[in-house]
Amino acid sequence: MIKERLEKLRALMEREGLDAYLILTEDFHGSEYVGGYFKCRKYMSGFTGSAGSLLVMKDMAGLWTDGRYFLQAEQELAGTGITLFKIQQEGVPKLSEFLVDKLADGGKLGFDGRAVNYKTAQLFQKVFEKKGKKITFVSDKDLVGEIWDDRPALSAEPVMLLDLSCTGKSRADKLAEIRKAMEEKKADYFVLSSLDDIAWLLNIRGRDVACSPVVLSYLAMTQESVTLFINEKTLSDEVRAALAADGVAFAPYNAVYDYVKEVPEGKSLYVDERKTNYAVMMNRREGVKLLTGNNLTLLPKCIKNETEVENERKVHIRDGVAVTKLIYWLKKNVGKIEMSELSVADKFEELRGEQEHYMGPSFEPIVGYEEHGAIVHYSATKETNVPIAPKGLLLMDTGGQYLEGTTDITRTVALGEVTQEEKEAFTLVLRGNLNLAAAKFKAGVCGANLDYLARFPMWEQGLDYSHGTGHGVGCFLNVHEGPINIHYRVREKERTTYTEFAEGMVVSDEPGLYFAGKFGIRTENLIVCKKAQKTEYGQFLEFETLTMVPIDLDVVLVEKMSTRERELLNAYHKKVYETIAPHLDEEEAAWLKEATRAV
Amino acid sequence: MIKERLEKLRALMEREGLDAYLILTEDFHGSEYVGGYFKCRKYMSGFTGSAGSLLVMKDMAGLWTDGRYFLQAEQELAGTGITLFKIQQEGVPKLSEFLVDKLADGGKLGFDGRAVNYKTAQLFQKVFEKKGKKITFVSDKDLVGEIWDDRPALSAEPVMLLDLSCTGKSRADKLAEIRKAMEEKKADYFVLSSLDDIAWLLNIRGRDVACSPVVLSYLAMTQESVTLFINEKTLSDEVRAALAADGVAFAPYNAVYDYVKEVPEGKSLYVDERKTNYAVMMNRREGVKLLTGNNLTLLPKCIKNETEVENERKVHIRDGVAVTKLIYWLKKNVGKIEMSELSVADKFEELRGEQEHYMGPSFEPIVGYEEHGAIVHYSATKETNVPIAPKGLLLMDTGGQYLEGTTDITRTVALGEVTQEEKEAFTLVLRGNLNLAAAKFKAGVCGANLDYLARFPMWEQGLDYSHGTGHGVGCFLNVHEGPINIHYRVREKERTTYTEFAEGMVVSDEPGLYFAGKFGIRTENLIVCKKAQKTEYGQFLEFETLTMVPIDLDVVLVEKMSTRERELLNAYHKKVYETIAPHLDEEEAAWLKEATRAV
Repeated sequence: MIKERLEKLRALMEREGLDAYLILTEDFHGSEYVGGYFKCRKYMSGFTGSAGSLLVMKDMAGLWTDGRYFLQAEQELAGTGITLFKIQQEGVPKLSEFLVDKLADGGKLGFDGRAVNYKTAQLFQKVFEKKGKKITFVSDKDLVGEIWDDRPALSAEPVMLLDLSCTGKSRADKLAEIRKAMEEKKADYFVLSSLDDIAWLLNIRGRDVACSPVVLSYLAMTQESVTLFINEKTLSDEVRAALAADGVAFAPYNAVYDYVKEVPEGKSLYVDERKTNYAVMMNRREGVKLLTGNNLTLLPKCIKNETEVENERKVHIRDGVAVTKLIYWLKKNVGKIEMSELSVADKFEELRGEQEHYMGPSFEPIVGYEEHGAIVHYSATKETNVPIAPKGLLLMDTGGQYLEGTTDITRTVALGEVTQEEKEAFTLVLRGNLNLAAAKFKAGVCGANLDYLARFPMWEQGLDYSHGTGHGVGCFLNVHEGPINIHYRVREKERTTYTEFAEGMVVSDEPGLYFAGKFGIRTENLIVCKKAQKTEYGQFLEFETLTMVPIDLDVVLVEKMSTRERELLNAYHKKVYETIAPHLDEEEAAWLKEATRAV
Repeated sequence: MIKERLEKLRALMEREGLDAYLILTEDFHGSEYVGGYFKCRKYMSGFTGSAGSLLVMKDMAGLWTDGRYFLQAEQELAGTGITLFKIQQEGVPKLSEFLVDKLADGGKLGFDGRAVNYKTAQLFQKVFEKKGKKITFVSDKDLVGEIWDDRPALSAEPVMLLDLSCTGKSRADKLAEIRKAMEEKKADYFVLSSLDDIAWLLNIRGRDVACSPVVLSYLAMTQESVTLFINEKTLSDEVRAALAADGVAFAPYNAVYDYVKEVPEGKSLYVDERKTNYAVMMNRREGVKLLTGNNLTLLPKCIKNETEVENERKVHIRDGVAVTKLIYWLKKNVGKIEMSELSVADKFEELRGEQEHYMGPSFEPIVGYEEHGAIVHYSATKETNVPIAPKGLLLMDTGGQYLEGTTDITRTVALGEVTQEEKEAFTLVLRGNLNLAAAKFKAGVCGANLDYLARFPMWEQGLDYSHGTGHGVGCFLNVHEGPINIHYRVREKERTTYTEFAEGMVVSDEPGLYFAGKFGIRTENLIVCKKAQKTEYGQFLEFETLTMVPIDLDVVLVEKMSTRERELLNAYHKKVYETIAPHLDEEEAAWLKEATRAV
């Protein structure tokens, strides 16, 4: 079947005179999760992982993917004739390097310019230039679309309005704020492609993308106009009227390309070229003055206003109740009733579903038992699912979308006996988590300045985790939201590396330790940045922990913690008990009392 | 007198058709300290501060300087007709802004292109461009030189060779290493202007600049040749022969400008444009391919080899003996014999002078008593000097040059009774110093990742210090040596912000607290980066403290330190005692025993 599809594609490539055709994993908006319509790479290769790039040429087809998916890709590609290229393995060329070697000077490379990020295309161009090869990009053909008969339709879920009590800032105020920013940047036009930015700006939400409550659309604005490019069927009269009242006009989803073409020469166009697809960027006229930088919505969206922060606190109580109940249920029933990774994930959904305004998971739940906990991006499938017994550790990284906010929490829980090694690792992770949350610092500090606080307990032992310590989190929006982040790496070329903390930013605090084949540990809370005192030396900032769920004392080696770390743990547990207990039944509350005892 | 000089300059400006003439504080090499020949700004304005820019126009003359020098500049400029522009004060225009406002379109700005950094000139150019003004730079005239009759000659001190036992790497090996780097960069020519880089590369030292044992020169190299542009009178036959043996040819100091002019079109020229003057840069032909980046010598110089690190350890014993003796002398004699800030500085020189291979101070000593300690860049003069009494705190930041290394140490010492406030501040600073020195981290970490360790005790109290936490230090070279540094700021446009720690880098660890009009505290040690264990997670690194001088326990509030901090202090003091005591007389050793007691 895959072979047939590839042959069909090759026929179309010949028709178009293309030497190579590239199929990445993106939708038209650079979303982290993509809808069925966009899963061209999966359709053409059979590979179902969340990351991978397919290259098709006359005499070869290759799929590039990373370490998380080597095994899975090998299985899924078997018999397709597609070669697996294992990214970052010795002797394996990068896709761009492979291409520049294989393509002849004057060759033609095809791809759907809407489904390729502009920066990615530029990177290819640079590699070609460096090798002195002239390669033409043909980016206006969606060849997979011509082959794919039963392609799912573009999602067209109804759009909902988000109330001021949720957003804390009206659409009109947000539009005025962005227009002011445009003025400062001397931007006549601002084109926005990232779906969470559009949803934030217009105070709308949708269901077009799994886990992210966003609406498939583009947006363009000037000082006078706002145009939302969208399937108008998704708009009820009420929604349409509300948006129109704030001056929003509507145009078909794909009309954004014509809109960009019509930006007059001499005018300036502001875009975040890292968040915009190649087709949008290339459609601009030559005489248009291009201004690039972070989306003007990026920081205002990241800095939650008082209403949003207050809502996040409330949402975290609901989510805390659900997760606390789950841990209690788990501890009480493990070994007595049948449980598996998948059934625990279902239990999360059930318990969160009982909470007010729960809208669904904020990402695919990670429930990893024993050695599965060591697989950082593990998500149980029917094939990998294992039963859970009353022993060892269960790592659970899950989150919920609520009308008023988004949660993301990881707890690693003992289901029975645990080893000294497990306890030691757990305590290191906990110490990192606590120390970061207790940071107090001056305005001007960014994530790279604080990462050490989460890592040093591990580093002192020669241990480490290979993921970031923290990511920004949206407010009833994307669970991974830029630009704020916590990582020691200072990437010279990434603008978001330099984002300074500001009051209202919500980030995760999630150190971990992973021992392949044995067990994994992660402890994750969301924390919100708040103002501390202001002195003659400047404004000081600190964090407040939003997540309200006990940390399993059964795995803590109290004697390996400093006095201060113990105090931090006890203060946190005290607050968890006071906040969550009133929402539990008597038996649960009694258990929580013990689970949050001072140590 | 100043007025006369300015009138003479204006006459020359008229002769050259210049609308403005700019005199900065730099020598031709961007050195931190400059020789008498280069002190044009001082000669023309009478202002003696270490930082300041003089602008002369037909109808005005203005001096821009920073907060350290407002008072001094006001006094020194009185009666000269020169307006003082206080940098970063409200309503005060930047020099570039002032210039762009005052100069007419088509105007001519003159300066000595050798004494202006290329990046500085570029910055002016950008400001002019932004305002749409076409300003011509006339950079080939040293007008001050025409006026300045009794100008000191260019320094021409004899050049000395540094032995392999000091450098740990031969000249030939260093040249080969840099040639390899040139090959990698595809650089046909490499022109080096920074004096410490030249001294490092050729294993030579000199006395042309105060405090920095460097040689006034430029260097240019290709795969085949090395040319040292230097006053040949400074070369003895022995030095000349040794350099020639490694293929070094000699040319007159100013011949570098002709050399750059002769770099053939089509060839590539590598320079650090931030460390090169405007004249060198502008002399290149248009067809020369310019490659820019950090000087190829920068990292190899910064990463001390095993011999250098071992030498630094030895030098720090000698320096530690001198400074320990000084503190003992101070504590014993204060109130009994006459002392002043200046006489204490002299005592440092005397005691260091007794040490083997002492070559002089590594920077102008800072000895600040009581409120003078709060002036970060204070250096006592005859006018500011105060007598020292047996009470309060004395801050002493001094350093020495030795044949085998460079030291930089700050101790703040109680001379009698000190207040609770002073003790509290002292303890915060000490905690910062100890915590940073005890860091353990993974390779890939840079200074911005660790700065929090030195600052958090202050930040937790809403306090801060406005300087960096650490700077790199040369090996018998500049006491401020890039690129490694420790500061929380991540400056997007500064290449050195991203410098990762590596084994052999020597940096200072110098948190402080300053209370204007009251007292200042700084505790500074030099630390060297070393490899810790290597695990499957990567190479880990840690610091070893080089400085061996007791920290004044009379000002420490032990109860405000954590158990770990106390352990760190005790371990340090134990090592200080064991290392230094054998070099003291009985009385001194007995005192040191007590001064380094466990707390």
